[in-house]
Amino acid sequence: MADSLAYRVLCLLREHGALSRAELADRLAVPRARLLGELGRLTAADQVREAGPAASRGGRRSTLIELSPAYRFGAVDLGATSVRVEVCDRGLEPLAAVEQAVDIRSGPRPVLKVVSELLGKLRADGAFRQLDGLGVGLPGPVSFRDGVPVSPPIMPGWDGFPVRELLAHEHNCPVVVDNDVNIMAIGEGYGGVARSVEDFLYLKLGTGIGCGIHLGGRVFRGKDGCAGDIGHIQVDPNGPVCACGNTGCLEAVFGGAALARDATAAARAGRSPVLAERLAAAGALSAYDVGQAAAAGDPTAIGLIRAGGTALGTVLAGLVSFANPSMIVIGGGLAGLGHRLLAEVRAVVYSRSLPLATGNLPLVLSELGDRAGTLGAARLASDLVFHQA
Amino acid sequence: MADSLAYRVLCLLREHGALSRAELADRLAVPRARLLGELGRLTAADQVREAGPAASRGGRRSTLIELSPAYRFGAVDLGATSVRVEVCDRGLEPLAAVEQAVDIRSGPRPVLKVVSELLGKLRADGAFRQLDGLGVGLPGPVSFRDGVPVSPPIMPGWDGFPVRELLAHEHNCPVVVDNDVNIMAIGEGYGGVARSVEDFLYLKLGTGIGCGIHLGGRVFRGKDGCAGDIGHIQVDPNGPVCACGNTGCLEAVFGGAALARDATAAARAGRSPVLAERLAAAGALSAYDVGQAAAAGDPTAIGLIRAGGTALGTVLAGLVSFANPSMIVIGGGLAGLGHRLLAEVRAVVYSRSLPLATGNLPLVLSELGDRAGTLGAARLASDLVFHQA
Repeated sequence: MADSLAYRVLCLLREHGALSRAELADRLAVPRARLLGELGRLTAADQVREAGPAASRGGRRSTLIELSPAYRFGAVDLGATSVRVEVCDRGLEPLAAVEQAVDIRSGPRPVLKVVSELLGKLRADGAFRQLDGLGVGLPGPVSFRDGVPVSPPIMPGWDGFPVRELLAHEHNCPVVVDNDVNIMAIGEGYGGVARSVEDFLYLKLGTGIGCGIHLGGRVFRGKDGCAGDIGHIQVDPNGPVCACGNTGCLEAVFGGAALARDATAAARAGRSPVLAERLAAAGALSAYDVGQAAAAGDPTAIGLIRAGGTALGTVLAGLVSFANPSMIVIGGGLAGLGHRLLAEVRAVVYSRSLPLATGNLPLVLSELGDRAGTLGAARLASDLVFHQA
Repeated sequence: MADSLAYRVLCLLREHGALSRAELADRLAVPRARLLGELGRLTAADQVREAGPAASRGGRRSTLIELSPAYRFGAVDLGATSVRVEVCDRGLEPLAAVEQAVDIRSGPRPVLKVVSELLGKLRADGAFRQLDGLGVGLPGPVSFRDGVPVSPPIMPGWDGFPVRELLAHEHNCPVVVDNDVNIMAIGEGYGGVARSVEDFLYLKLGTGIGCGIHLGGRVFRGKDGCAGDIGHIQVDPNGPVCACGNTGCLEAVFGGAALARDATAAARAGRSPVLAERLAAAGALSAYDVGQAAAAGDPTAIGLIRAGGTALGTVLAGLVSFANPSMIVIGGGLAGLGHRLLAEVRAVVYSRSLPLATGNLPLVLSELGDRAGTLGAARLASDLVFHQA
């Protein structure tokens, strides 16, 4: 279905702030009369308003139009162990944000209660009175159409739970639910390093590994909403057994959990004094410790990152040959391993993929960090609201 | 850009033959007055015509509209060693077809001369007087926008050659050029087993291996036109060296050339009397011989097909996790290995990919055979002509 004129007007104003009627008519390539009619309707509905005269372009002065400053979009990025909630303004800038630890495994009602409490807190603090829309990312496959999780492996009790309905009822606004990696990809495409790119892959390296697929300016979700679930692509037929039951999955070889496991084993086996010291001090190791040990020059930690980068690069090389993307963005907690990881991944991708596909392929770290997910969720929420305008 | 009304009218008539004005207005969801204006224009331009009264729907009799019977679309499917040329009618049915051996390595001018001669022969035989459009598939990456091959690995001398311009000048009609696997995928999506499916992968197993990616009803070509080039995804780090210089590429392990190589080695090493006999008789072996030997119960030949199916399945399993397609169609010469190959591929994909992604995933053989490519090329040619209407 083609996007309505109202939707296109609202999206342009979201991105550019204020635009004159003449600029809008130019950018939208619609007859001025039709645009003015639509703007009259949107003004009457308090969705846009006049914002004073535009700079002269020589002829009659045009008036600037902007989105109503009253717009408020909620954004929720639910991970396996924490949640980030933001309230954003009409330009998707965060007015207020809060993060809290929460265990996704405690089930949908307790977790969504935390989400609602955090939103209530932001309301009490004055960030909004009423949300216009709410976007939510979940750490598992989601039926985008139905707004429910579908067989999510690390979310017991969530399968088919009506997340969208419950939140829409509770917050009295339209709600959109998507996979967390997809909202990060949308955020990167809207306001991140992939801003001007139509076709890119967003790689989330966290406890698990997932991929957001952005094609032709849209997220591609696949038949069942599980496109991009690359954590279970096999990288080593003789590798460790994965939580999914197969052997040698990317996630079983690399990713936050695998890295913590391998670092702990190295520390216990006396292969890394640095890691052993951190283990003794903290009682447990994480990917962060591996990064710190590598930064301190620990060869075992560096070896773990390089081996992980090779595994990741092997999978990415295949995806580059398959999808011939314009850019690959790496985000998520393990992106903190930084350029050492990136160098390894690049070495494999650039040597293993087709030269034609890698000739001009940027492989870069995300610059949005934690905001990628909430920015994408806010973008989805505003898209939904603008589509209904 | 949204498709024009004229384009949508012509596509509907191409697919359905004749439709009444009332059916057209219903299916296109446009006001009747606007449709009638457009039909008047298309009739005056000899692109559509009236085809008698429609069956009554109760009210006033509507008139049937059909595409002009004068439409002729040329379709060329160029492979590494042969070319198939068709002339198709308005419904993309072949009026005449011809195949001929041709070595793509002899360079663009000699090969395109053969193409033009074959088209000249079909014209002399009365299949057409003037083509309305011509679609061409080439066995390598193509810049779809520019109509030229881009760094094609098995086509020396073709890089950047103006295939579209030369043929358009020679045949005095609009020409569209694409990768051969893409036109096969388009053919399968238009008139094959994937006819009603929006998102599917078409796998061509021939001398080489490639994948057509059909998403949201369109072929996805990637940034450089080389999306789907999966023949160089690594399946065995210790595998044979590939023509591309890397080791263990899918194409070096499986595919027509690899199968012929392994079959010849098996015959010479005395591991297969059946293959040895065929080798002695013909002087060389091909994938066809392996299929025949397997059908005769030769365990070595069966083993080769199973090992190839495992390699192919491993790559496909990763692509299924990544793209979560609605269907996978297997075509090309090696599809003749049939259900033995299919069984092996299915076993790997169904055990290695996410259960959610494979729960309802048909993995089937193409039924179009050699026609997939020319049907897709004719479809592309008619799309181009209809867009210009």
